Amino acid sequence: MKKYTNISDIKNFSQAIEEAIQLKKNPLKFSALGKHKTLGLLFFNSSLRTRLSTQKAALNLGMDPIVMNVSGDAWGIEFEDGRVMNGSTAEHIKEAAAVVSQYCDIIAVRAFPTLTDKSKDESEHVLKAFTKYATIPVVSMESATAHPLQGFTDAITITEHKKTAKPKVVLTWAPHVKALPHAVANSFINAMQNMDVDFVITHPEHYDLNPEIVGQTPVMYNQEDALKDADFVYAKNWSAYHDYGKILKTDLDWMVTKEKLGDAKFMHCLPVRRNVVVEDAVLDSDNSLVIEQANNRTYAAQWVLKSILEGLKS
Amino acid sequence: MKKYTNISDIKNFSQAIEEAIQLKKNPLKFSALGKHKTLGLLFFNSSLRTRLSTQKAALNLGMDPIVMNVSGDAWGIEFEDGRVMNGSTAEHIKEAAAVVSQYCDIIAVRAFPTLTDKSKDESEHVLKAFTKYATIPVVSMESATAHPLQGFTDAITITEHKKTAKPKVVLTWAPHVKALPHAVANSFINAMQNMDVDFVITHPEHYDLNPEIVGQTPVMYNQEDALKDADFVYAKNWSAYHDYGKILKTDLDWMVTKEKLGDAKFMHCLPVRRNVVVEDAVLDSDNSLVIEQANNRTYAAQWVLKSILEGLKS
Amino acid sequence: MKKYTNISDIKNFSQAIEEAIQLKKNPLKFSALGKHKTLGLLFFNSSLRTRLSTQKAALNLGMDPIVMNVSGDAWGIEFEDGRVMNGSTAEHIKEAAAVVSQYCDIIAVRAFPTLTDKSKDESEHVLKAFTKYATIPVVSMESATAHPLQGFTDAITITEHKKTAKPKVVLTWAPHVKALPHAVANSFINAMQNMDVDFVITHPEHYDLNPEIVGQTPVMYNQEDALKDADFVYAKNWSAYHDYGKILKTDLDWMVTKEKLGDAKFMHCLPVRRNVVVEDAVLDSDNSLVIEQANNRTYAAQWVLKSILEGLKS
Repeated sequence: MKKYTNISDIKNFSQAIEEAIQLKKNPLKFSALGKHKTLGLLFFNSSLRTRLSTQKAALNLGMDPIVMNVSGDAWGIEFEDGRVMNGSTAEHIKEAAAVVSQYCDIIAVRAFPTLTDKSKDESEHVLKAFTKYATIPVVSMESATAHPLQGFTDAITITEHKKTAKPKVVLTWAPHVKALPHAVANSFINAMQNMDVDFVITHPEHYDLNPEIVGQTPVMYNQEDALKDADFVYAKNWSAYHDYGKILKTDLDWMVTKEKLGDAKFMHCLPVRRNVVVEDAVLDSDNSLVIEQANNRTYAAQWVLKSILEGLKS
Repeated sequence: MKKYTNISDIKNFSQAIEEAIQLKKNPLKFSALGKHKTLGLLFFNSSLRTRLSTQKAALNLGMDPIVMNVSGDAWGIEFEDGRVMNGSTAEHIKEAAAVVSQYCDIIAVRAFPTLTDKSKDESEHVLKAFTKYATIPVVSMESATAHPLQGFTDAITITEHKKTAKPKVVLTWAPHVKALPHAVANSFINAMQNMDVDFVITHPEHYDLNPEIVGQTPVMYNQEDALKDADFVYAKNWSAYHDYGKILKTDLDWMVTKEKLGDAKFMHCLPVRRNVVVEDAVLDSDNSLVIEQANNRTYAAQWVLKSILEGLKS
Repeated sequence: MKKYTNISDIKNFSQAIEEAIQLKKNPLKFSALGKHKTLGLLFFNSSLRTRLSTQKAALNLGMDPIVMNVSGDAWGIEFEDGRVMNGSTAEHIKEAAAVVSQYCDIIAVRAFPTLTDKSKDESEHVLKAFTKYATIPVVSMESATAHPLQGFTDAITITEHKKTAKPKVVLTWAPHVKALPHAVANSFINAMQNMDVDFVITHPEHYDLNPEIVGQTPVMYNQEDALKDADFVYAKNWSAYHDYGKILKTDLDWMVTKEKLGDAKFMHCLPVRRNVVVEDAVLDSDNSLVIEQANNRTYAAQWVLKSILEGLKS
């Protein structure tokens, strides 16, 4: 594998899931593969799970992780071509990406969307600049429109916990107090579309996601109907896509409750706001898979890094 | 050992001191013990010594340390149960602690007190939440009311430098311009109460510490009388305990001077404000043990991590 | 080698360059040398290249790097002797440097100048305090008046790319929107004065650098004349030295263009403001060596750390 910025970079998805599950059983099996290889983790935004799990995955492979908070530790980065740089940015991405490539073997980047400039976000200008100007493989640790390490993780978790050949999986919008990105929802949809599941999306009207991503996946505006007989309920807030970045609904009607969930397993990428997105009774019950999802982040990242390391040799 | 959040977690204190002194002589003797084990260091507050010495201790044991400044790097953490999280906190400690437990083998936490809310501080709400929700052993790198790595370090340092079987040790309050926690003083008292020393506390009136911690230890309000014939003088500022978190005295009468110290050894946990807590002439003399104390932080931490790693195996 | 704070710390400069070029060919040849040795990297200022390349160099030698952003992670440091520390600084450099020396084998420090207090900057009060109070070797990662890792790097790069026995090298001032330090220019001058090159400095009037550093090196106020027949053009902005820290010229007349450059190789330490210091057409051409310079930072640092590690043993 030469990069990982989207679920579609995984050629054989079900095989990848199985291999990741095998890695989880023996995380140190390939601890010699990454010896003397460096993973640069560049954060433009906050991170807990991604920060720790990606480092852990690198360590399991024998790699040396180097972490950098770009904004605080280094220089303001300019992404626009041809710009006369007499403002606040001190270094162009052309140099930054090429320079990091001198010291690392793989570069992992987290860069959230603006949620104010739709075309800029959809152009993935930060991530694309890294993949364009870095001379080493790039891994997305969540970009403007995708969180493929999370989507892969979620597919692993569902595979581990499914009790029927073709489980019913529901992605439900949930309330939140802040305008949130579409990245997690998008990658979860991508992942489910690559699995043998009965997949439904539910959200309030006017919260439709990018139709190019949703594609043929059924969308229901009635949460109760959508959740019926679900095996897995994946809750996630996102801001409006068409009325870009806006919060259109502030009441808690769509919060996931124990009653709504029934016997289904509950999933969320975390961090989650308790009693806003989902009530305590769900997260504190055995039906919650959120901690297991967090755990699987390590093995998703490890599969990705391993695949890229193997590609470096060829 | 299953956790280290208080001096009392060390079952045989004098044996632990001896073992730490042995570790200091051969720091790499157990460099295979922590191989492929991860120590997560979570800082809610500033740190120099603790940050570096705890990492060094982990490296000496072959562990991989991962450092995170919680506030800057990750998400605002909610500690209250049942809260509707529609405010500034984005992740509940229930998830945060459980999630970190997925990636690390031991978690070390630094979280200072508010010094405004006594009952909150005394409940150790941050540290207790970590010990409650983490599924891995927790080490305190200074909590609201205790700094047990420092207390253990101080006991090691006194043991190394004592010239009589039962030295006289004085903990003296000293001036400061900011309201400081009681943690270092509390753990030093705990440590001394576990050693065969002639131990006295001295401070101005109204600066009495928590009586449950002071117990039977003699307290003197006259610094000069207290320091008489001392072998070790440990200086530390703390804010008032009864008039909680207040600064009641701002003059420099209680500053430790070379004249007051005499032939005694001078100790302080650092950082120390020169010519406020103690005058230059003391710190710059051979009687000062402060750098040796800082050095011993490594071996105190290493003994603790080693004991916990050994516990993981059983 | 006992420290590296200036180009002059390298005794045999041409031999050092050759050895660094050999290290580049086989970076892992000495990967056992630094085993169980710790490099503490202390940043008072931003860093991308230095942060990553110095860590990479340490890793190549088998060392454990520990990074600390002094301002954000630790305590405000006092550098003045005899001060009554009742202000904003919480720890004196005497303690800070001695304490870090307990946990590390080599300490690397970055501390930029004030650009407002010339005598303070020229006294190198931060770096000198570290070399005075640390008990372990100190490496400068750019101080108030020198950036010797960069100067060494630049000498390596010129040696690799020169096509004549004695190439013509021009250091040209270039425009910038902020007041920048003299450190890079100073160390580049030091390096060139130690090499067999035809070296010229060019800058606008009133931008003369420290005459003690410039020495006998010819200075021209006419950029066009200076650049004639150059093999290497090194661009760098600096603020005025005599009218200390001031910006005297804001137009872009002195920007390096493709036309001005001709067939010469272009060099810059980075970060560089495009279309202010140098136009896109130069950086995007094959004549630019800036990425190769960044790459060589690793081997310059590695040579320095290796030389110091070898000194530790003797």
